[in-house]
Amino acid sequence: MSRPIITLTTDFGDGSPYVAQMKGIIFTINPDATIVDITHGIAPQDIRQGAIVLSDVVESFPAGAIHVAVVDPGVGTQRSIVYLRMGEWHFVAPNNGLLSLVAKRFPPTTKIEITNRQYWREEISSTFHGRDIMAPVAAHLSLGLDPLKLGDEVEKLQRLTIPEIQFDSNTITGTVVSFDHFGNLITDIPADLLEDARKKGSLEIRCGSYVISNLVRTYGDAAPLTVAGLVGSSRMLELSVVGGNAAQRLGIDVGEPVSVSW
Amino acid sequence: MSRPIITLTTDFGDGSPYVAQMKGIIFTINPDATIVDITHGIAPQDIRQGAIVLSDVVESFPAGAIHVAVVDPGVGTQRSIVYLRMGEWHFVAPNNGLLSLVAKRFPPTTKIEITNRQYWREEISSTFHGRDIMAPVAAHLSLGLDPLKLGDEVEKLQRLTIPEIQFDSNTITGTVVSFDHFGNLITDIPADLLEDARKKGSLEIRCGSYVISNLVRTYGDAAPLTVAGLVGSSRMLELSVVGGNAAQRLGIDVGEPVSVSW
Amino acid sequence: MSRPIITLTTDFGDGSPYVAQMKGIIFTINPDATIVDITHGIAPQDIRQGAIVLSDVVESFPAGAIHVAVVDPGVGTQRSIVYLRMGEWHFVAPNNGLLSLVAKRFPPTTKIEITNRQYWREEISSTFHGRDIMAPVAAHLSLGLDPLKLGDEVEKLQRLTIPEIQFDSNTITGTVVSFDHFGNLITDIPADLLEDARKKGSLEIRCGSYVISNLVRTYGDAAPLTVAGLVGSSRMLELSVVGGNAAQRLGIDVGEPVSVSW
Repeated sequence: MSRPIITLTTDFGDGSPYVAQMKGIIFTINPDATIVDITHGIAPQDIRQGAIVLSDVVESFPAGAIHVAVVDPGVGTQRSIVYLRMGEWHFVAPNNGLLSLVAKRFPPTTKIEITNRQYWREEISSTFHGRDIMAPVAAHLSLGLDPLKLGDEVEKLQRLTIPEIQFDSNTITGTVVSFDHFGNLITDIPADLLEDARKKGSLEIRCGSYVISNLVRTYGDAAPLTVAGLVGSSRMLELSVVGGNAAQRLGIDVGEPVSVSW
Repeated sequence: MSRPIITLTTDFGDGSPYVAQMKGIIFTINPDATIVDITHGIAPQDIRQGAIVLSDVVESFPAGAIHVAVVDPGVGTQRSIVYLRMGEWHFVAPNNGLLSLVAKRFPPTTKIEITNRQYWREEISSTFHGRDIMAPVAAHLSLGLDPLKLGDEVEKLQRLTIPEIQFDSNTITGTVVSFDHFGNLITDIPADLLEDARKKGSLEIRCGSYVISNLVRTYGDAAPLTVAGLVGSSRMLELSVVGGNAAQRLGIDVGEPVSVSW
Repeated sequence: MSRPIITLTTDFGDGSPYVAQMKGIIFTINPDATIVDITHGIAPQDIRQGAIVLSDVVESFPAGAIHVAVVDPGVGTQRSIVYLRMGEWHFVAPNNGLLSLVAKRFPPTTKIEITNRQYWREEISSTFHGRDIMAPVAAHLSLGLDPLKLGDEVEKLQRLTIPEIQFDSNTITGTVVSFDHFGNLITDIPADLLEDARKKGSLEIRCGSYVISNLVRTYGDAAPLTVAGLVGSSRMLELSVVGGNAAQRLGIDVGEPVSVSW
């Protein structure tokens, strides 16, 4: 049998010893797991950013992968910890909306509130359930544990309130949801909506004080240092400054509205 | 047999090609090792910080794990390199105090000065013994090499001079020893001392110009942006600003004294 | 059989979800691969820096390792993607000079333009060939795929124009090519040239406005906070400020000429 994959997504920061502790616990229970760091660079306690990253990456992972996500401002309080089966993957995370964007695309088929202490560490801190509950639970799952043994069905899954895309007679309005290391501004306007709009007329993209009419296929197709729109690798509209950093140059941040008119 | 675990703790910086070189050397000798990055974010040549991180994480790792630590300002000089067996784990590091906090908690049962060049790379640089000596030695240990073959017993282990906790009639005085990515200030005052003190009267914590009387169980139990004390995940007193960054807001750095009075 | 090693070198940034996507794709095709991050900290689109890092680390890796490098400003345009066999290792990268420094030291014995879509993902984005082409190709290679099946021989390999070392009657002039996390300035002047020069007279190293005559064996051999030259771990001349950061203190950046006179 191939080695089971456990992924980690946290806001602990790169090189955090907290991450190492989680890995040590996982390997103590299952020395043959393969652990993959998705990112530890989620901004502290930014559940929304964590939810976006998870939703962006899940489809790249093989069926059976166990995704552990720890962005957990409510650690030690009444918020629950859940196991969800969504698509072909397993998820372990606090029930605080972190999994809600994946859940929108892949509705959960199993939903468990993790309460059975048998699969936790013996001593549970009040401040680090990633290490004391989520890591050991994931390790046991990687050994083949039936998720139904983790607890009972969860009643209510927490959702994020994310602005929906607005449709007008000749305009779609979305939002900048993230930017990458190159400064490309990634929006929530999907490629197919853009394609539909393009059939109706020539497009004008507005974001901040910028009006962009240059829609290209890839970065290299626009002139250096000009602003262009394109469909990025997650099939969403991106705004890019070729050979430059769009986020910095345009002074635009996550949350900024983006409209596409025709 | 399960795959042996080798961990790396260095001050090389995240994404340093030096780390990649160590991993390449390890995999050349033992392609079936599992390498775990504890952190490469130790401040350059900060032996004390390295010692604290190692002491914080060792207990999370399975018995038999081989911990390699390279914070090595004396590389190429007369300082020795040692193998220590402490608790259920193996350690390979320069003999400069880097292992001394672990040694305080888990007194070494085997102590070898690594001198047998048979398990080193053929060519030894003057500036990178992590790659040329420590990585190959760890890889050979992971294949089952008897540590006694690495050299003779080491005479003297270097220690760090770390301030001890001071006890007064109604006060314990310790130190801020680190802060995490969230800005939580982690002290060297252990939970059980705090518990004893609490039984004697209501507590007052002083650090910098701050007086804190709010002791909570977890972050979510204090009001947002207030300062609170709590027992953190390594069972030490932490000072935290809920939903904020205590280190930044309080302007307090590592080394600052912390007192608990009753 | 031992687990095959796939390394990743990119400019995606530490903790980038793009890296996680590449890993997910690799593990989907070959769950038993061992993936090693060389670095994701190459400056955005800095092909030259990527080329230097690859050349520095390859020799540390075992024969058979598959090195994937993605610094790819021309993604989606006419630039090709190549497979090269150099030394005992395999390489997959855009044909943009990223492999040219390794190629100078280990001339390619197999050179293929990767065109056979059978080993790519089904859907190919215009902006992320690292995930859609290079990752799956590397994963198939790790399963034993014959590289000749990836496409036909490539006609022309792109080279970097890197300044050559200049020789004068009593002077060698090279360049600062990188600096590490400690601020050590690493030049392209190899140890053997330095050794030859030293036999001809006492040496004087000039860089920026600095004249350095202190050549030492290792960092600890120079007085703290003085500037010294030494042969570093990649067998090149380095300029170092002992216990300090040479790049910051001397105000010297990559590209600065360095001369050695006797």
